[in-house]
Amino acid sequence: MPDTIARNAVAAVHEARQWDRLMEMAKLGAIPGDGVNRACLTDLDRQARRLLLGWGTAIGLAPSVDALGNLFLRRAGTDDSLAPVLTGSHMDTQPNGGRFDGVWGVIAGLEALEALHAAGTSTRRPIELVAWTNEEGGRFAPGCMGSMAYAGFKPADTWDAVADNEGLTFGAELAKHLALEADIPRRGLGVLEGPAPFAYLEAHIEQGPRLEAEGIDIGVVTGIQGSRWFLVEITGKTDHAGTTPLSLRRDAVQDMLRAVTALNALMADPTDTLRFTVGRIEVHPNTSNSVADRVRFTIDFRHPDNDVLQARGNAIPGVIQAALAGCTATVTERFHAVPANFDPMVPDAVAAAAAALSLSVLRMPSGAFHDAQFMVPLCPTGMLFVPCRAGVSHHPSEYSEPAQLAAGTRVLTQALADLANR
Amino acid sequence: MPDTIARNAVAAVHEARQWDRLMEMAKLGAIPGDGVNRACLTDLDRQARRLLLGWGTAIGLAPSVDALGNLFLRRAGTDDSLAPVLTGSHMDTQPNGGRFDGVWGVIAGLEALEALHAAGTSTRRPIELVAWTNEEGGRFAPGCMGSMAYAGFKPADTWDAVADNEGLTFGAELAKHLALEADIPRRGLGVLEGPAPFAYLEAHIEQGPRLEAEGIDIGVVTGIQGSRWFLVEITGKTDHAGTTPLSLRRDAVQDMLRAVTALNALMADPTDTLRFTVGRIEVHPNTSNSVADRVRFTIDFRHPDNDVLQARGNAIPGVIQAALAGCTATVTERFHAVPANFDPMVPDAVAAAAAALSLSVLRMPSGAFHDAQFMVPLCPTGMLFVPCRAGVSHHPSEYSEPAQLAAGTRVLTQALADLANR
Repeated sequence: MPDTIARNAVAAVHEARQWDRLMEMAKLGAIPGDGVNRACLTDLDRQARRLLLGWGTAIGLAPSVDALGNLFLRRAGTDDSLAPVLTGSHMDTQPNGGRFDGVWGVIAGLEALEALHAAGTSTRRPIELVAWTNEEGGRFAPGCMGSMAYAGFKPADTWDAVADNEGLTFGAELAKHLALEADIPRRGLGVLEGPAPFAYLEAHIEQGPRLEAEGIDIGVVTGIQGSRWFLVEITGKTDHAGTTPLSLRRDAVQDMLRAVTALNALMADPTDTLRFTVGRIEVHPNTSNSVADRVRFTIDFRHPDNDVLQARGNAIPGVIQAALAGCTATVTERFHAVPANFDPMVPDAVAAAAAALSLSVLRMPSGAFHDAQFMVPLCPTGMLFVPCRAGVSHHPSEYSEPAQLAAGTRVLTQALADLANR
Repeated sequence: MPDTIARNAVAAVHEARQWDRLMEMAKLGAIPGDGVNRACLTDLDRQARRLLLGWGTAIGLAPSVDALGNLFLRRAGTDDSLAPVLTGSHMDTQPNGGRFDGVWGVIAGLEALEALHAAGTSTRRPIELVAWTNEEGGRFAPGCMGSMAYAGFKPADTWDAVADNEGLTFGAELAKHLALEADIPRRGLGVLEGPAPFAYLEAHIEQGPRLEAEGIDIGVVTGIQGSRWFLVEITGKTDHAGTTPLSLRRDAVQDMLRAVTALNALMADPTDTLRFTVGRIEVHPNTSNSVADRVRFTIDFRHPDNDVLQARGNAIPGVIQAALAGCTATVTERFHAVPANFDPMVPDAVAAAAAALSLSVLRMPSGAFHDAQFMVPLCPTGMLFVPCRAGVSHHPSEYSEPAQLAAGTRVLTQALADLANR
């Protein structure tokens, strides 16, 4: 790769500038402990977008907004009629979120374009930076609305009636938002009203502990693992804790215990690839001296291999039923996303860029969802990860070092330049 | 016993009158599904007390109230200077309670006195009927305040600052209550200001399924089993459910599972005498796609044998610590009551009365708490149980048949007459 490396642009990536911009963004919605709470389509979100817009237009990027509020900043190519390379992520956060999840992918894309600009490096294809609307789903569920609509995965009006905790609907808040950004040129909505990108590359913190634990600089993401979410409701009978013999009880807590123990056995995986989580439990009546007559719990099951995802996921209801001693159970699947496997083109470009910069890489699936998964049907897609401390995300203590982020942005810059010259 | 049976009085027990009085009481605080919500020291409580007072004074019983609001109705003995036989229970209910728990013991005592009155049967000793203040603890915790103060177990002002959900204190509500009952003669508070009873006998629904399941008429209660309550808090680390390998997690839900599984083994009891309940579980952050960093759960452990109660209860913290895979735990004991074993005098009187009436009996410990446990240090104490449907109590569906209740009251009448003639 040395003959194709965008040496000057990579050298122009400015660690302190990128960090300072992240810290400036982090002031918008700052919460105690270095956290950020910046929900989509709020004034804070709009302030973050204006900040981005100011930085982008200062280096000649052309802004536009689509019907879902996805915000674009375009750097022209030498053949500007070609399909663009798209990069970016999101700027909304979880309610108790951190300073890097999402927003770094946007700031990294901006820094890459700034570096190309500073180095005077032109590319054959245009490069577009995107900040997707509502990736987190913290205010309006589900997340990834902007990328889903862009990809034509769902109609743009799908979520108009979704309300936040205060009863404000997504449709009304989006209309208000678009009116407040009426000064920004409008563009057509994604692949429904425009060309597909040539490629999509999203930078993100890992949100897991592997890169840090193994001392790796860059995660070359090979795809996004599949997920199946279930809600289990176990129904027994409430009784007096002091009087009812154990043999006569139908204790929903005890049958929950049996069910989860059986699921642990079903989900056993010596390779430690499988993810199985019971994260939410609700007990009724939930008093210390009453036998519980109802327990609801959630299952979050993920795997990058669709065969495993299907086989073990399909076994869940039967395993639960067989485990019960006296209660009954209903098992409802609430979400089912098959694994998204990335075309090798973009991951290979990321790996080549890292190699050219003498950075270590690990090829890995993404455990978390990302807007990238909706780009997979549109164009060659990829992601790059940087390490984050202790794997923590969605929490104020979320942290990546300035140098780790800068290394990721250098790889992003090189990979974007490479892809945009194809 | 046939020569000492109070035949005429037992024959005067009036099934329909007792039932009608219970149904009239049940109107005071009626809630859907035949339930009752009648908290202590409320207007509803006072209406119930006035109803009782009216029925009692109509047959010449002498009312009095003590400093805790315990309400007494006294039937004179032929030697009225002797220590009285005390009978009764409580008239307050759980917030989602039924028509029988507590109030039947009071109405049964009244019916016994009414039967003695109707039959013209006098007894050597006086018999006092008591309605204890705040047995349930549903409005002001803990329960059994009236009987604890009567017994000198706690000073009368112990709970003055205890507030209900609306911020009203027990002390202020009790003062208001006593002012509203200023027309009723005041008496000294229990054994601090008066003689101990000769004996105490409380009638109650079983609140468990054994009598019904075994087709037994009368439970002869031998004591009240001991109880130890613990709060366990397990602390781990929250992580992203999609990204964090299971081997790197410190999942508080999974360690809760390990802890309760180990406790189930500790609490194994082939005789099915031991009661072990995990009835309350709280998970944090309790979201489906986050590994839990904290689980709190309660342990309610009861046994009639103090050796078992001490040995297994003391083993709980160590068993939990040994079961944890990656989390830490704190175990706090919140309540510890050793078993109360009744002197045989009153249980034997109950058994003899049942035998004289050709009713079947089962000697059994009480699984639930009762005011009776605080009488144990004062005088020979006993309880009698009648079956209740499916063992349900503290619920609107709580039910005993009129005939089952009448049988219990006949035994009570005979036993009281027997004890009051000693």
